[in-house]
Amino acid sequence: MLDLESYLEGRWIAPGTQAREIRSAVTGRQVARAGGVSWDAGAVLAYARDVGGPALRAINFHQRAKMLKALAQYLDAEKEALYALNPMTGATRKDGWIDIDGGIGTVFVFASKGRREMPEGDVYLDGGTEQLSREGTFLGQHVAVPLRGVAVQINAFNFPVWGMLEKLAPAILAGVPCLVKPATSTAYLAEAAVRLILKSGILPEGSVQLILGGTGDLLDRLGPQDVVSFTGSAETALGLRAQVALGGARFIAEQDSLNASVLGPDAVPGSPEFDLFVKEAAREITTKAGQKCTAIRRLIVPENAAEAVGDALTAKLSKVRIGAPEAEGVTMGALVSTAQRADVLDKVALIAREATRIAGDPEAFDCTGADAQAGAFLPPMLYRCDDPDAATHVHSVEAFGPVSTLIPYRDLPHACALANRGAGSLVASLFTHDPAVARDVVLECGAWHGRIYINNRDSAGEATGHGSPLPHMTHGGPGRAGGGEELGGVRGVLHYMQRVAVQGSPEILTGITRQWLPGAVEKTPPRHPFRLSFHEIDVGHTLWTGSREVTLEDIETFAQFTGDTFYAHMDEDAARANPFFPGRVAHGYLLLSFAAGLFVQPDPGPVLANTGLNSLSFQQPVSPGDTLRVRLVARRKTRRTEEYGEVRWQVTLYDQENAQVAEYELLTMVAYEHPEG
Amino acid sequence: MLDLESYLEGRWIAPGTQAREIRSAVTGRQVARAGGVSWDAGAVLAYARDVGGPALRAINFHQRAKMLKALAQYLDAEKEALYALNPMTGATRKDGWIDIDGGIGTVFVFASKGRREMPEGDVYLDGGTEQLSREGTFLGQHVAVPLRGVAVQINAFNFPVWGMLEKLAPAILAGVPCLVKPATSTAYLAEAAVRLILKSGILPEGSVQLILGGTGDLLDRLGPQDVVSFTGSAETALGLRAQVALGGARFIAEQDSLNASVLGPDAVPGSPEFDLFVKEAAREITTKAGQKCTAIRRLIVPENAAEAVGDALTAKLSKVRIGAPEAEGVTMGALVSTAQRADVLDKVALIAREATRIAGDPEAFDCTGADAQAGAFLPPMLYRCDDPDAATHVHSVEAFGPVSTLIPYRDLPHACALANRGAGSLVASLFTHDPAVARDVVLECGAWHGRIYINNRDSAGEATGHGSPLPHMTHGGPGRAGGGEELGGVRGVLHYMQRVAVQGSPEILTGITRQWLPGAVEKTPPRHPFRLSFHEIDVGHTLWTGSREVTLEDIETFAQFTGDTFYAHMDEDAARANPFFPGRVAHGYLLLSFAAGLFVQPDPGPVLANTGLNSLSFQQPVSPGDTLRVRLVARRKTRRTEEYGEVRWQVTLYDQENAQVAEYELLTMVAYEHPEG
Repeated sequence: MLDLESYLEGRWIAPGTQAREIRSAVTGRQVARAGGVSWDAGAVLAYARDVGGPALRAINFHQRAKMLKALAQYLDAEKEALYALNPMTGATRKDGWIDIDGGIGTVFVFASKGRREMPEGDVYLDGGTEQLSREGTFLGQHVAVPLRGVAVQINAFNFPVWGMLEKLAPAILAGVPCLVKPATSTAYLAEAAVRLILKSGILPEGSVQLILGGTGDLLDRLGPQDVVSFTGSAETALGLRAQVALGGARFIAEQDSLNASVLGPDAVPGSPEFDLFVKEAAREITTKAGQKCTAIRRLIVPENAAEAVGDALTAKLSKVRIGAPEAEGVTMGALVSTAQRADVLDKVALIAREATRIAGDPEAFDCTGADAQAGAFLPPMLYRCDDPDAATHVHSVEAFGPVSTLIPYRDLPHACALANRGAGSLVASLFTHDPAVARDVVLECGAWHGRIYINNRDSAGEATGHGSPLPHMTHGGPGRAGGGEELGGVRGVLHYMQRVAVQGSPEILTGITRQWLPGAVEKTPPRHPFRLSFHEIDVGHTLWTGSREVTLEDIETFAQFTGDTFYAHMDEDAARANPFFPGRVAHGYLLLSFAAGLFVQPDPGPVLANTGLNSLSFQQPVSPGDTLRVRLVARRKTRRTEEYGEVRWQVTLYDQENAQVAEYELLTMVAYEHPEG
Repeated sequence: MLDLESYLEGRWIAPGTQAREIRSAVTGRQVARAGGVSWDAGAVLAYARDVGGPALRAINFHQRAKMLKALAQYLDAEKEALYALNPMTGATRKDGWIDIDGGIGTVFVFASKGRREMPEGDVYLDGGTEQLSREGTFLGQHVAVPLRGVAVQINAFNFPVWGMLEKLAPAILAGVPCLVKPATSTAYLAEAAVRLILKSGILPEGSVQLILGGTGDLLDRLGPQDVVSFTGSAETALGLRAQVALGGARFIAEQDSLNASVLGPDAVPGSPEFDLFVKEAAREITTKAGQKCTAIRRLIVPENAAEAVGDALTAKLSKVRIGAPEAEGVTMGALVSTAQRADVLDKVALIAREATRIAGDPEAFDCTGADAQAGAFLPPMLYRCDDPDAATHVHSVEAFGPVSTLIPYRDLPHACALANRGAGSLVASLFTHDPAVARDVVLECGAWHGRIYINNRDSAGEATGHGSPLPHMTHGGPGRAGGGEELGGVRGVLHYMQRVAVQGSPEILTGITRQWLPGAVEKTPPRHPFRLSFHEIDVGHTLWTGSREVTLEDIETFAQFTGDTFYAHMDEDAARANPFFPGRVAHGYLLLSFAAGLFVQPDPGPVLANTGLNSLSFQQPVSPGDTLRVRLVARRKTRRTEEYGEVRWQVTLYDQENAQVAEYELLTMVAYEHPEG
């Protein structure tokens, strides 16, 4: 038997005499115990806030992202230790893949997004600069900084590894220490994962603590700089929310919801979408024995296709082999506990008042390699509700197991209305090949569902599944789904940060964000900026080039050479008739090319390549005889590889009257070292 | 006396026998009455949800933005009707300007941001496309759609017009109908503003209702699609939050907070920043008689400058002329009511336990043109607290009147710690000329303050003021400030919308967002896309150009012509030593120029101008002998003026092996009509 330990204030703490017992989902026998010790919530919080927080904030987003990558690599190498415990939860290897590899993959994505989408610094820029003044001496910039508190992460039993890592990764990336509180029934897997995390030695001291058993008065001690992220039932969330609100901590809830899947009116039997729908429905009912907060509880199908769907799905479900997860040929394991099974059967009894069972008998099913009663086994069950408008349980009672209800609809508005009857869900899916149907459903259902997953023949080969929250996309939903949001890339990181509206002069904002803004000081570099290595370039280093006249001959030559003989460049009368031009004007690309000619330093040096260009705007036409001059300012620096980093330059083109004619951001890669010789 | 009327279900409803009486701030005499009628909250909600909501959602963001602009213009023309009522609130004309012109200006900004930053459509795109698959057949896109409920807007007494309009404008822009509930003590101004709004006939039926008096069981009837936006005290917010949480509506609170202003260590007496600080402090104490949720309650100054600040500020405050707002020479009016004055004096008594009064005696001050006792007059009062570390009231008791406390600090970390003792504020300001000080303060204080306002000699001429929330920047703050957020441009609009993570094929996402994505269908236009008018262009119209070889001679010619003789284009050996290039390569700008030569149709036609270019990335070097081909796809359309609209094109350059070598978004302006002839 496993004695599961909490990890608090840097020490492992064994279970006490009042420890809770944990049983195997498959055999019903006790396999572990946890909790039952008293601990000092104030000291635990202080340890996180005073040790973990400062250590995480001492490094920047990119450094934390690199730690996450190293952590994901470490867990990936050690993951078989987790797979070894997985069957006790009732989960098959395939179910475990969602939990274990899925969790590790989520950490990889946050590591990658942290590097690509967050700055190499400690202040995140939220949106662009706001022009608050005519002359530009006073500007606004929203930034985000890490909260100064802790992230209390209360996880559900169904995905002990993924559920922990999907909350841990964004919090660590934000710079906020975590207190992890797993569900007791599968705490052995969460504890094993935390042991690996700590053993890796990658995260700084104090950034992760593990609480097994009760939380004592922890939640009452939280304040406005803390976050509680909760995954679980609506009932539990309601009490927690009220408790947490008193102290002013943020509360993010993902609650189980009555997710729907809609078969589009175009997806008639025989169409690829019909088959995809049936396949997805079967998968959602059986994966993890239906114990997924995103599982499809309501299958909303055209009236005239309901029979066909019922038949196809029943046929598919009849092939499901239930039993011990490790037994040969088993495709669906057990529920997490016999208590959970009893709860599912209670809920099913309510649904059965409004719907007829068309597949799966909990009293009579085969169970391979295990005792169906001692273990928490159930067969996949399909109901059909023919009066869904009158029904209430079907839309509100969630049997958190292998259960779904088939609901026929009359037309698309009816289907949307039925989907929305769930009063808020994490995800609704739609199987259609018709973009107009997809658009109608998003407009009609969008406000009630956190995610809308649309699949058809075009995307089938790569679609990621109705039930899979991805780290790139937000996970959460309104109403019954809890109103919270997790993941969604940087959005999920920002849940652990405070947005601040900063106002000040360009020089002040440049100092804060380390991104040069027009109006801030133009520093004089020691030599041409292309002769400076990445580390020698300072944000604000400025080059003013010499000037060059643009002649009519230049325009003619350029038109001839490139083939761009657009009339605005070639025909004085036609150009003059155009509302944008005073007569023949230079090509925009001629201006860009001449600008490069003016600012480029031709010899081999640290500047390696121009990789792109952003937000180019042509602000004023340039006529023959006008003279160009260019200002190049180092705007922002980001290390990218071991050899070179990205330098973004603000490039501004002026005419002889000092009016801006074009502006853009130029991306270059610049070596850390000067080339040899 | 004014009989103020509610506006519910399309009808004005006079006050009942139980109406509340409203007194003039200046004379103390009753000037109006309001409320005291019973009404059917269910019917009022249904009217908003079933009449106002659908009418607003039937038009797109740009149409709603245009309505807001028309509304702002109408209110601007009619505003003297509001100024006529303003003095009764105790406010001077200058105070009224913040409320009335400030409110109208806010509507203008939302109108403008709606047009510039939101699409001409009904689905808002939140962030970019997420690549969820290797081949790109399954993608993600976050969008936002309007909530299906109502916005209940509970406003504070101090800015009856601004407070209403700053909530109304983003909700209307989102497409959500509003129930406005003003504070009773200044409801005559809010009612007058609503009368103007309705008289204008600009907003659709059902989009605005006005509730005077109690809210009955309205809040208990709200659900997950509704939003309550509250401005007021922390105590009121706490009760409301709990009540609203049960139904699952969103709750956004702006609470009065203990805002601080920090005088930087560099801002010694005699410096411009010192003078700016004193000026701002005096303004914040006296404007609106200190009844501003953003007013500076704590003046945090270097120990060695405290005396000088006290003297300078006392001198400035001694020149303030208190009295009837319309009386000659008066610079500070009355508080809103004698009850409010009594409350301020109670709070001041608590502060006085920890601080000494150095200016302003509430028992002895001149009052011009009014009876100081009958009206709600007070003088500006300045306290000084010399042991701020031990103090508690100074950091937690908000006297919502012309009161502030001077607090000396030892060093910058001490100043930050003191600022953060407010336990969450709407705004902290800083007067410094040193970007490093600004950076330290943002990093140290950012998590505790919704806005950080930094001013100095560079920005003084255009800075907008510590106490002014701007529609561009978020308004709200953590902890004591309520944890909510308003304004912030589109961020404020999104508070009334639901974010949805949409997943699907490129064609499906294109159908939903009306923005073409790579992988979606390439439609064949009837002729060259440059020969199509704005309305004839369909999103997805695609042009594949002919091909063109890039020769070494082209590269030489281009280098010669532009002056861009960067070694990667000119020197085979040096280029080969560069990690990005296989040898000499074509200039990026040469590729852009040749691409234009390939896709441009030269004759006068509906395409008027290329105005810019976004997100250009050079994906692969092009060597001499390679052949270019270009794909141009109509990506997105937005009407801009009466004559033309913006068409964004996805431009992709391919080489002879069909590998992408560059990609960008091209911006053009395209006429609605073909040119004559």
